Amino acid sequence: MDKALGLTLLEEHKSHGGRVMFYEHASGVLGLPARFGVFLPPAAQSGNKVPVVYALAGLTCTQETFLIKSGALAEAARLGLALVTPDTSPRGAGIEGEATDWDLGTGAGFYLDATEQPWAQHYRMGSYIAQELPLLVESALPLDGTKRGIMGHSMGGHGALVHGLQAPLFWKSISAFAPVVHPSVVPWGKKALSTYLGTNHAAWRAHDAVCLLEDGYRHSAPILVDTGMSDQFLQRELQPWHLVEAAEKAGQTLICREQEGYDHSYWFVQSFVVDHLRHHAAILGVA
Amino acid sequence: MDKALGLTLLEEHKSHGGRVMFYEHASGVLGLPARFGVFLPPAAQSGNKVPVVYALAGLTCTQETFLIKSGALAEAARLGLALVTPDTSPRGAGIEGEATDWDLGTGAGFYLDATEQPWAQHYRMGSYIAQELPLLVESALPLDGTKRGIMGHSMGGHGALVHGLQAPLFWKSISAFAPVVHPSVVPWGKKALSTYLGTNHAAWRAHDAVCLLEDGYRHSAPILVDTGMSDQFLQRELQPWHLVEAAEKAGQTLICREQEGYDHSYWFVQSFVVDHLRHHAAILGVA
Repeated sequence: MDKALGLTLLEEHKSHGGRVMFYEHASGVLGLPARFGVFLPPAAQSGNKVPVVYALAGLTCTQETFLIKSGALAEAARLGLALVTPDTSPRGAGIEGEATDWDLGTGAGFYLDATEQPWAQHYRMGSYIAQELPLLVESALPLDGTKRGIMGHSMGGHGALVHGLQAPLFWKSISAFAPVVHPSVVPWGKKALSTYLGTNHAAWRAHDAVCLLEDGYRHSAPILVDTGMSDQFLQRELQPWHLVEAAEKAGQTLICREQEGYDHSYWFVQSFVVDHLRHHAAILGVA
Repeated sequence: MDKALGLTLLEEHKSHGGRVMFYEHASGVLGLPARFGVFLPPAAQSGNKVPVVYALAGLTCTQETFLIKSGALAEAARLGLALVTPDTSPRGAGIEGEATDWDLGTGAGFYLDATEQPWAQHYRMGSYIAQELPLLVESALPLDGTKRGIMGHSMGGHGALVHGLQAPLFWKSISAFAPVVHPSVVPWGKKALSTYLGTNHAAWRAHDAVCLLEDGYRHSAPILVDTGMSDQFLQRELQPWHLVEAAEKAGQTLICREQEGYDHSYWFVQSFVVDHLRHHAAILGVA
């Protein structure tokens, strides 16, 4: 089964009664080998299909970061939720300067399809997340594609909000930790969007959660967002109040929590990951 | 307070309602700067002294590894247990070849005082764990030194067993994940003990949990040990059956669990860390 789909199993570890696996495959969309992680809860061991939440990590992270640092596995095992963790960018595209900046290129794909050169050929994490990865992994493993959620941290929170709003029937539940909610107006976002999409700001709106809400995109389920009030990127990069305002105007149900004293780290993520998993489980009908 | 004790706070993060901190201090015992991590649960925020478990990490790890990868903080917060995580060796001793091998020197202090040259001057993690670190951290932070446990993983499991058995009034509770129980007879252990202590095997016995039990050392509390039956080091380095046999002969209460399918990784550790924390909490009288 794995071979037919071009999946190579790199690592497998029993954990919390389930299994953590890391795979590599030849991504057609990216035109490069790509890696991702999976946690299958004990409920999937008999081959029963289980609901699945895709977890998108932040700048500089890999497919391993969320799984090992978020502390999510115990609760995911309990709830019977699978987790899928893609990498944060293509690797090895061979673009000059690709690995120079920590907030652009390698480790910083922003979960979108670049249209500018020299990025457009390989930097297609948008289609990878929206189509290729879910279809691949749900063909190979006992995952229930009718119960699929998306979450993320920081740049990955941006990815979760944007993908969730763009395809609300595909992604049934959304949550984010310390997301970049309005990339069009903050330094990380402006740098990435102008590099990957060019200077035509109209093209940026499809990759900005606040703009998507302004432009009529909605999700039928409540969206959960946690941001630390001592986050070192709060004022400069995150500005969650833009999302609150846009959701209010749009009539989008949003649970946007301000977590006093917490910063941007995984020490923060792991403090609230149980709430996020239960949010997904409740919407996906498994809690 | 911190300055008086020579402690420099490197990082502080709110987590699970408590605080994760990383400190550096000039260690008199090691003759070098040393780093360690602390988790203070919410119960300590008012300055109330809380029970504390020292967690010793394995080969190649640092003071951060256990805290970020074990998933322990949620349960430690719930139980009101503090965690203290030392580094796994002195750093920067300047010994030639110190960082060449992953299982000797840097990241591989084996929690003992070396007597051989050129290690004897700085490689004194034994006294560091047994005296300097606890006295320092318990002077600086609201930790209850009368309720102090020790746990560890792999080389750190060796450290927890040895320190716990050598000083059972100081360390009130002991547990270990995949410990090196009988270093005198396995490759990692023989390499470290002969390098740090020389070839006189009589000197090794004080640094080998099985030998300590044979030589009359006991702990009044049950010792909890988990080892994965798919651990890649099971046959070569761990051999937990030696501990079972020695404990039985010695009349030492030992809960030695064989965890089917689990390997040596933190995917294994995080699967059972809640059991270990509850074991310590029960013995320390806080569960």
